[in-house]
Amino acid sequence: MQTRKDWESLVSNFEHIDMHPAPLHMPDIPERGFPEAEFQRRCKAIQQNLRNDNIDVLWLSTEADIRYVTGFLTQFWQSPTRPWYVLIPQSGKPVAIIPAIGEQCMSRTWIDDIRTWSSPDPVDDGVSLLTDTVTELAGKNARVGLPMGSETYVRSPVNDIEKIKSHLPEANWIDATECIRAVRHVKSDLEIEKLRYVCSTASLAFSRVPEIIKAGMSEADAFRAFRIACLEAGADEAAYVVGAATPGGYEDIISPPGNHIVSNGDVLILDTGCTFDGYFADFDRNYAVGSVDEKTAAAHQRVWDATEAGLELIKPGVTCAELCAAMQAVMLPGNASAGSAEVGRLGHGLGIQLTETPSIAPFDNTPMQAGMTMTLEPGYTYTEGKMMVHEENLVVTETGYELLSTRAARDIPIIG
Amino acid sequence: MQTRKDWESLVSNFEHIDMHPAPLHMPDIPERGFPEAEFQRRCKAIQQNLRNDNIDVLWLSTEADIRYVTGFLTQFWQSPTRPWYVLIPQSGKPVAIIPAIGEQCMSRTWIDDIRTWSSPDPVDDGVSLLTDTVTELAGKNARVGLPMGSETYVRSPVNDIEKIKSHLPEANWIDATECIRAVRHVKSDLEIEKLRYVCSTASLAFSRVPEIIKAGMSEADAFRAFRIACLEAGADEAAYVVGAATPGGYEDIISPPGNHIVSNGDVLILDTGCTFDGYFADFDRNYAVGSVDEKTAAAHQRVWDATEAGLELIKPGVTCAELCAAMQAVMLPGNASAGSAEVGRLGHGLGIQLTETPSIAPFDNTPMQAGMTMTLEPGYTYTEGKMMVHEENLVVTETGYELLSTRAARDIPIIG
Repeated sequence: MQTRKDWESLVSNFEHIDMHPAPLHMPDIPERGFPEAEFQRRCKAIQQNLRNDNIDVLWLSTEADIRYVTGFLTQFWQSPTRPWYVLIPQSGKPVAIIPAIGEQCMSRTWIDDIRTWSSPDPVDDGVSLLTDTVTELAGKNARVGLPMGSETYVRSPVNDIEKIKSHLPEANWIDATECIRAVRHVKSDLEIEKLRYVCSTASLAFSRVPEIIKAGMSEADAFRAFRIACLEAGADEAAYVVGAATPGGYEDIISPPGNHIVSNGDVLILDTGCTFDGYFADFDRNYAVGSVDEKTAAAHQRVWDATEAGLELIKPGVTCAELCAAMQAVMLPGNASAGSAEVGRLGHGLGIQLTETPSIAPFDNTPMQAGMTMTLEPGYTYTEGKMMVHEENLVVTETGYELLSTRAARDIPIIG
Repeated sequence: MQTRKDWESLVSNFEHIDMHPAPLHMPDIPERGFPEAEFQRRCKAIQQNLRNDNIDVLWLSTEADIRYVTGFLTQFWQSPTRPWYVLIPQSGKPVAIIPAIGEQCMSRTWIDDIRTWSSPDPVDDGVSLLTDTVTELAGKNARVGLPMGSETYVRSPVNDIEKIKSHLPEANWIDATECIRAVRHVKSDLEIEKLRYVCSTASLAFSRVPEIIKAGMSEADAFRAFRIACLEAGADEAAYVVGAATPGGYEDIISPPGNHIVSNGDVLILDTGCTFDGYFADFDRNYAVGSVDEKTAAAHQRVWDATEAGLELIKPGVTCAELCAAMQAVMLPGNASAGSAEVGRLGHGLGIQLTETPSIAPFDNTPMQAGMTMTLEPGYTYTEGKMMVHEENLVVTETGYELLSTRAARDIPIIG
């Protein structure tokens, strides 16, 4: 029942459309949320992994993990004040152990068993409720799984984690990182539909850059205009917008906008994490302001070609390490086995976090599977202190891939 | 060097200005960043606390703590992939131990000693570099401080924390929550200037709601329009926008927008966390769509009056618990000592996080000090399943307070 955006009117408004490809096709706005069957499937797959690893109950504490198994979507996680917990036993539905402020929102998910306390409570901020529920579900000597591996953390005070462990002295604590991660890697058709949509909104916003960003604007105003374009294109949020406009090329890709005035000779990179219904687009685009030097123009072609090498290779069974080597072979001939020293990888998983596992890196031998959604993000230092990073988003199919982002032009586009 | 917004043109565009007060005064856009003296002051105060608690070195791992002591501002924290660390010895500058992708951005801060590794690295993701640096700064039997108390967490995998502890078997681990929290509570004039500005942008966006949100729009489109208004008013980001438009009143205040069509008889609440240069506004506004029933109108007056009771009391020395009781006395006569069961508190600190300590709650006896920036956020259930929450932002002064948000009208405004 949302208002359908008139994409054509947004797209027809600027020139040089070949240099700034806009989505040719406008996806329908996906339904928000998921049917209960989606969560049943996810939980059953996780529970199978728990049984395989002899884990009685899985303890989750982060936004992405809890949303994945419950559908609990709220920006309230931006407040660091309160801990939130979900327990998944070997069979049956997950149990939510959450601050009372979240009860209504959680009650609109498929979860039935919602236990709340009045939080914040510096004396007992859910600790007793959590430990009592662990005991109820799996006994005092429960084997409790917890994501402990790389790219995880427990969103609780250290003092509370210690209290929980001391309240359950006979429990065993087991690293359950892979029990949920392996399931999250492969997206369902409904998840892919949301990712396809949000990537289209980001593609549309990028195609409008020559219209909305001009020499003479401050970097901060340029970033603001781009954020607004993402929202106008249909994204719910454009929470992540980083980049730079720097004379002759940029030095890093994670900085916030400064007071620099966008000027002729700048290279502008905008990297965005837009979301729709909690699913992320994450890709960047480069622009030259007014003119471009030869080295920068060549570097853009090089990272585009590296992306192309990754796209030509990608299909089920190909590993992250192989994808990394194929892209490095284009950027650093003779040194294809190198990782990226600065960025550490040349792409990553994409879904309900801005960045997910696996990593397109020499150390990661995860094979591609149909339904995995990935970014290819080759980047390198092409001249003293100047980087070029290019990124596309895709979903792996049975035979290869489908691009989710609208493929950039090989030549760096020039804006005014 | 930013473009100055023409606030007058934005404000003059709608009617009923008395019901939707806009900022009367347009603050200048503050400078981005801080002079080095600001960070020296912060670190010296923290280091004094470390010496008082006999802590050799403070280990920080979260966005807010690291930004507070270094000035390292990036949205890249939204990627959960990589750990980031800062160590503060008892004297001298902080030492940054960070992924190489952040080196350029960190090198633009006042920090000189920046140690990097290529991250992600699943084998050793900064663990050796961190433990070596602890040993170098404070010896093998260092007393290492770490925020472990309520509203904290360590942003590292559990496996890495265990490795770090096993690499430093003679070290002592000490809860250092208050060493940094007490310093962060009191804002400098430069911090207050940023908070004053960002609150003005949110006030301006709220005053434009009757112009931009109309019956017939979907909740999602209404929220999107409000986000754009926040950006147009000068906020860098409007990452946090929650609320509801619900027939006869809302049931919770943390939900994302759904497909509901904003309709006559709805009560609309919008709660926003806008930022400028990393500093947050956090307040809400209520609107009645088309018409309002008596209970809802009275509840809005009640929470407005409760806020007024808090404002009348607030000055240095008054405690959070006393502020809570004063507001509850208005909302729940005869039960003034109660907290808020759902929300857990009636306000909180404000600054570089959406929500900071202290809590305006019965359990928190923190006294107000000049320079503390706070939200007053009284809310209650005024009829079966219907809440009313009202919020203002302020800074405590030597004699009382200065409002940072533009005070709402006592009567709930009606929009079309």
